[in-house]
Amino acid sequence: MRKQFTIGIDIGGTTTKFGIVDDQGNILLQDRISSNKHEYVEDFIDELHKGIWPMIEKAGGVDNINGIGMGAPNGNIYTGTIEYAPNLKWKGIIPIANLVGKKFGLPTRLTNDANAAAMGEMIYGCAKNMKHFITITLGTGVGSGIVIDGKIVVGHDGFAGELGHTIIRHNGRLHKSTGLKGSLESYASASGVRETAIELLTKYPEADSLLRDYTINELTSETVYNCAMQGDSIANEIFDFTGEILGEALANFVMFSSPEAIVLFGGLTKANEILMRPTRRSMEANLLPIFQNKVKLIYSQLKEADAAILGASALMSE
Amino acid sequence: MRKQFTIGIDIGGTTTKFGIVDDQGNILLQDRISSNKHEYVEDFIDELHKGIWPMIEKAGGVDNINGIGMGAPNGNIYTGTIEYAPNLKWKGIIPIANLVGKKFGLPTRLTNDANAAAMGEMIYGCAKNMKHFITITLGTGVGSGIVIDGKIVVGHDGFAGELGHTIIRHNGRLHKSTGLKGSLESYASASGVRETAIELLTKYPEADSLLRDYTINELTSETVYNCAMQGDSIANEIFDFTGEILGEALANFVMFSSPEAIVLFGGLTKANEILMRPTRRSMEANLLPIFQNKVKLIYSQLKEADAAILGASALMSE
Repeated sequence: MRKQFTIGIDIGGTTTKFGIVDDQGNILLQDRISSNKHEYVEDFIDELHKGIWPMIEKAGGVDNINGIGMGAPNGNIYTGTIEYAPNLKWKGIIPIANLVGKKFGLPTRLTNDANAAAMGEMIYGCAKNMKHFITITLGTGVGSGIVIDGKIVVGHDGFAGELGHTIIRHNGRLHKSTGLKGSLESYASASGVRETAIELLTKYPEADSLLRDYTINELTSETVYNCAMQGDSIANEIFDFTGEILGEALANFVMFSSPEAIVLFGGLTKANEILMRPTRRSMEANLLPIFQNKVKLIYSQLKEADAAILGASALMSE
Repeated sequence: MRKQFTIGIDIGGTTTKFGIVDDQGNILLQDRISSNKHEYVEDFIDELHKGIWPMIEKAGGVDNINGIGMGAPNGNIYTGTIEYAPNLKWKGIIPIANLVGKKFGLPTRLTNDANAAAMGEMIYGCAKNMKHFITITLGTGVGSGIVIDGKIVVGHDGFAGELGHTIIRHNGRLHKSTGLKGSLESYASASGVRETAIELLTKYPEADSLLRDYTINELTSETVYNCAMQGDSIANEIFDFTGEILGEALANFVMFSSPEAIVLFGGLTKANEILMRPTRRSMEANLLPIFQNKVKLIYSQLKEADAAILGASALMSE
């Protein structure tokens, strides 16, 4: 008999979110812990166990649980390992699916965090009933999940779908943690927007801008958005620039897999039309006519944490 | 009972190649006609029929034939139509699979020409046994076929895999027939190499070069290759420049679908290591470490015409 509940765990660079999901996709209970408090992954798993075990007991014990689905940066679906994740404390190759599975005595599967989010979108979100779409997370970094024929693209080694690291400006801005130059993530992420802000304020030292009232530390993408909403022209130019680059990258992705939609989520999407308008314009301008005015550019309707937990849990119902 | 033979037809911008293929992938007979002689597609199909019918008779008549598989630019596998192909005479939407099927009284399927070549590579060529690879044709233009999980990627509308039109140099060289700026095809094609040659000869008016002995019309990619082989430094720089751009684009494709191999074919591959060396160097330099030194960059072992005919014929054995 099919069991009723699944555990979903999303390990992010800062926070690990987890929850218990019923077979209708409702998250019954959820909580979070820090991802970076423990030097050893075993200690992290101990803390995770303390958080999740009471949920399992409330659900009637392990006999009612299908298993555990996990999403993590550089998580590999083939091997169940996290491999050289630049944003996590544990270095090298971490056999986390195995360790978690043993700790809980439950079947456990792992995938890339962005792929888990795409799966959440496909099963419970705005990509329901779509067989071809791409999700792009515009957060601290730029993550992506690619779905073709209703399946997440993982490639021959499990690492496909790193669209944030594709090069969009030859010899462009240095991306510090990878050393790549001109990658999408160096522009279309929260830190990219911040860097663009600093660049433009330095480039036009004479231009008035509300942004000048903030310290460098306060110059977040949210500050830039607030100033843009008040009509600040440099703040608007920052989003125009970001959208132009993002749109060009999206056009390239469309010409690769011809998706029905691109689903955007993450912090930057709060900028809404201020970012969307230049993005859409630039995407359409860089597409071959056979692709123009076909691809839906939509915002995720799921809460970010929910998409990740739901997507991770969906790994066990595949 | 499974029939013994299949017809494969490859409609190219200049030439249409066709042949009869046995169930072992041997092309028993083949021939070609011009693609652009007839203003009406019906007259083209008449000529095609005259070429193919004797082959069918030699094979013992239509009863021994599975059907007809076709590849064509902008050929759509879902609809069997060629849609707005810039390099063909017949404009608009041409229901060619239907027309050919009726003319021959045989089941007929159509796909994109580059996808047909990828299929030929997968079934009969160097990608045999590979489930994840990309083929790139470096010819007059740049074509591509993408295979994920053993299936050609066609996307939600049948048009996926137009990698030659992805933008690799922001605001770069104008691609005349599409109006796009800085697309891969404007650099990494035979005509792109020719344009680079003219640009570099103009940029360094004082530099000695064997290339200066040729008229503008003689400055083909083959001429450039021959001069490069003789140690001409401008000719070598042309291939370095082409390879740098091609490698950067290939890195982007790898981070999308993480293929086991990229299979190159088409006229430019005759330049061999002179093009391969800078391409490989640039690809590796633009990859995230998890992808480095993993992807095979290989030349197709099939003759180009064979790959296209075989691939098209394979459509009927799916």
